[in-house]
Amino acid sequence: MAKTNAGNFFEDFTVGQVIEHATPRTITEGDRALYGAIYPTRFALPSSSEFAHQVGLTDAPVEELIAFHVAFGKTVPDISLNAVANLGYAECRFKRPVVAGDTLTTTSEVIGLKQNSNGKSGVVYVRSTAVNQREEIAIEWARWVMVHKRDVDAPAPETVIPDLAGSVAPESLIIPEGLDFSEYDFASAGEEHRFDDYTVGEKIDHVDGVTLTDAEHMMATRLWQNTAKVHFNTEARPDGRRLVYGGHVISLARALSFNGLANAQLIAAINAGSHVAPAFGGDTVYAWSEVLEKADTDAPGVGALRLRLVATSGRDESMTLRGEDGKYAPGVLLDLDYWAFVPR
Amino acid sequence: MAKTNAGNFFEDFTVGQVIEHATPRTITEGDRALYGAIYPTRFALPSSSEFAHQVGLTDAPVEELIAFHVAFGKTVPDISLNAVANLGYAECRFKRPVVAGDTLTTTSEVIGLKQNSNGKSGVVYVRSTAVNQREEIAIEWARWVMVHKRDVDAPAPETVIPDLAGSVAPESLIIPEGLDFSEYDFASAGEEHRFDDYTVGEKIDHVDGVTLTDAEHMMATRLWQNTAKVHFNTEARPDGRRLVYGGHVISLARALSFNGLANAQLIAAINAGSHVAPAFGGDTVYAWSEVLEKADTDAPGVGALRLRLVATSGRDESMTLRGEDGKYAPGVLLDLDYWAFVPR
Amino acid sequence: MAKTNAGNFFEDFTVGQVIEHATPRTITEGDRALYGAIYPTRFALPSSSEFAHQVGLTDAPVEELIAFHVAFGKTVPDISLNAVANLGYAECRFKRPVVAGDTLTTTSEVIGLKQNSNGKSGVVYVRSTAVNQREEIAIEWARWVMVHKRDVDAPAPETVIPDLAGSVAPESLIIPEGLDFSEYDFASAGEEHRFDDYTVGEKIDHVDGVTLTDAEHMMATRLWQNTAKVHFNTEARPDGRRLVYGGHVISLARALSFNGLANAQLIAAINAGSHVAPAFGGDTVYAWSEVLEKADTDAPGVGALRLRLVATSGRDESMTLRGEDGKYAPGVLLDLDYWAFVPR
Repeated sequence: MAKTNAGNFFEDFTVGQVIEHATPRTITEGDRALYGAIYPTRFALPSSSEFAHQVGLTDAPVEELIAFHVAFGKTVPDISLNAVANLGYAECRFKRPVVAGDTLTTTSEVIGLKQNSNGKSGVVYVRSTAVNQREEIAIEWARWVMVHKRDVDAPAPETVIPDLAGSVAPESLIIPEGLDFSEYDFASAGEEHRFDDYTVGEKIDHVDGVTLTDAEHMMATRLWQNTAKVHFNTEARPDGRRLVYGGHVISLARALSFNGLANAQLIAAINAGSHVAPAFGGDTVYAWSEVLEKADTDAPGVGALRLRLVATSGRDESMTLRGEDGKYAPGVLLDLDYWAFVPR
Repeated sequence: MAKTNAGNFFEDFTVGQVIEHATPRTITEGDRALYGAIYPTRFALPSSSEFAHQVGLTDAPVEELIAFHVAFGKTVPDISLNAVANLGYAECRFKRPVVAGDTLTTTSEVIGLKQNSNGKSGVVYVRSTAVNQREEIAIEWARWVMVHKRDVDAPAPETVIPDLAGSVAPESLIIPEGLDFSEYDFASAGEEHRFDDYTVGEKIDHVDGVTLTDAEHMMATRLWQNTAKVHFNTEARPDGRRLVYGGHVISLARALSFNGLANAQLIAAINAGSHVAPAFGGDTVYAWSEVLEKADTDAPGVGALRLRLVATSGRDESMTLRGEDGKYAPGVLLDLDYWAFVPR
Repeated sequence: MAKTNAGNFFEDFTVGQVIEHATPRTITEGDRALYGAIYPTRFALPSSSEFAHQVGLTDAPVEELIAFHVAFGKTVPDISLNAVANLGYAECRFKRPVVAGDTLTTTSEVIGLKQNSNGKSGVVYVRSTAVNQREEIAIEWARWVMVHKRDVDAPAPETVIPDLAGSVAPESLIIPEGLDFSEYDFASAGEEHRFDDYTVGEKIDHVDGVTLTDAEHMMATRLWQNTAKVHFNTEARPDGRRLVYGGHVISLARALSFNGLANAQLIAAINAGSHVAPAFGGDTVYAWSEVLEKADTDAPGVGALRLRLVATSGRDESMTLRGEDGKYAPGVLLDLDYWAFVPR
């Protein structure tokens, strides 16, 4: 009896299948500290329990991306251990802040399957849900990955492509209980720009860059219990390089976006995301943002900005997403579309 | 008066001598997080306070090896600062789980001495005991190290070689208070294999590999307050390389063994251990295990597996411990013999 | 409207100006663990909550330098983002221990200005104060930095040079409430040397060295939310190297000083400090100390030592601070003058 996990292949998935992912994980203040050591984050709300209390939160949440990476990491051994590529995200909503002491577990349902025409692989669509120890939903999201077949002769399943929203409707964003930005302290937060200061179409060059090291991206990726071999093992790829976990670039770009978006305190939803190109140790990562949409919320003093967050290898002051050919510009690593809560 | 610690030399030790080691150390959730950032550990019990409670533990223990490395680190300035080599371990028992907030201190008794025939060094045998702030024993173990003499003309002490067990008898393993695996959640833990699924003689290739970086092994080794110069200083060895602390390889191999031994939740004892070859940054470490012995316990649903854990530099799918000449096979870094508690 | 912070230039400062720095920061046990992973610190008081209690402290403070780096980091975006050089420190007093759960915020007052004769830059003197969530002062200090002008034609301000003490008078040192070294446990602390064992003029070679890695100094510097580009970005300097944050060298040297000054448990004040030369990944840092002054205190069993802490790149067993020309000797990285509390 083979004891080790070989992961699931395309033909192992069926639409409607529910997978309970292993390894519940308790979030601690140690995670917050490590996150702050690995990413240059300075958002006041997760940095300061006092600031969190001042904006109406009874506990001091950790950054949404800590919870996301932990929740996502659980799905890797079952969903994407044999993935060719991580194709996309949709309908990711942060439904409840995660605080130190919370224990997260993740479950996924297969919501779509489509075998590729080459017969060697297929696309698996899953909707994943992370709950805390009280079975309250912390995060839910859909993603789709291209997964190898074990046996190219296995029959193709019926094609089912789920109907996923292009973006999360602003009226369906979940506001953390008690959140109130009406007495928001802009001096503490570090910038004066509020909801009304941002205009749709505006781009912001976040200026700063960080050169990646292998030690740091491996430590981050392990912290999320993500087991994909290519991140840790120089013998796993022909070029002998350790591929940086895509989520590492997301967190790095989000942290860099502080410079210009310091008041985008909470991530409310991720609408879409593409890991456009791989990143490796030695690359210097920069970020820019574009304001895509603005929306009101029912919470006092709280508005929502829909933002495109772009990470690049090397700085692109022109902030070009795509060339004239419609393809992503050289250097683009990440194209992430998300909603954030900001003070009005 | 010289203020710095030059460490003890062989002739400074006498049988029966008791050494109280310095620097009590409080364990925190920060240690747990760093351990998870540095090693790819996913054992459900130390990962999740909920899982720990579900198996009957009132608190959420950290991994036994966190406590071991901290307890061991305290002995280095007094026992092995002038060591030629760390020769072996025996009779190591984990007697009480260590939780965040516990403060560990370590005491050692010299239990044996044997000068080498060359007159330049000798073997020192010590039995060390780590206690918590309530003076309850957390860990006890014996080890022996070869230590330089300061003065080759110092007289040889009477040779005393302690009688150490080849392995810890399973009936003397200490079961953490309250441990009950009768409602064990195999889905949460990540694998279905239980006590009865393992057979003596079975070998398990843990498949995954991790390429070492200097930053990571130094951070780990410092966390344990281990002060041996060779781990941190490129000027301490003629080859300019930083030697990886042997315990780093133990923790890495243990974490890699999750893949195939996910239910070996708790280390109960270390029977023996050899650091067969040195490891350095850039080495890619793999692990395999062999089931050596099985035993019942009195605790509900709890069995004990005696396992050989072998770390190698480069993967050896043949899982060869020794060549035909009886010597360790090339690439073997670590040969560790331990007991773990698993669900029946 | 430009959204990103370009920092202040020389002509943006006026004497008497008060700046509330952004990003309140809650200290956690994660910070303590990371500090112990990055620096080889073994001082018993911050290592062990039990030891802290035994010397009369009700809580378990983190190392003073954790609080200092966090408090200092807050000032960087407003004071020194456009700095040419960090010129000096004075009158730094640690007024209250910082414990996990405390939230620090920092305010600075401009206390002096002097334009350089070249008209391109000037020296800004600030006095900064870090308070906790109860508005109690944790640390206060003065520093002066040379800052670029944005516009060389901007008029020079009136020159104001503050009157700063060459060192903190020992009678003005603040003793943490309850501190009592009369039952001090020297065995736990690791060395027997007490106040009376140190003589003014004595030098101590701390023996051990640590080779720097980029991953480690970046993680430390980020943990303090220090945003200076040169520490993180290989594209920020013509030589493609990442400059090590000066505070990293301070913490490393302080940790190395354990070997010979294990009982210098608490930093009471920083009298002066110079970052003599830059440090980079690959450098091996050593430290030595000189006893400058001794003083009594009112607290039971507590004396104060004024110490010069010198960090060098490469070991200098001669412990030479300056050559015959009066200039710092080659290899000197740091010259720090501080007061520490030690048992009598």
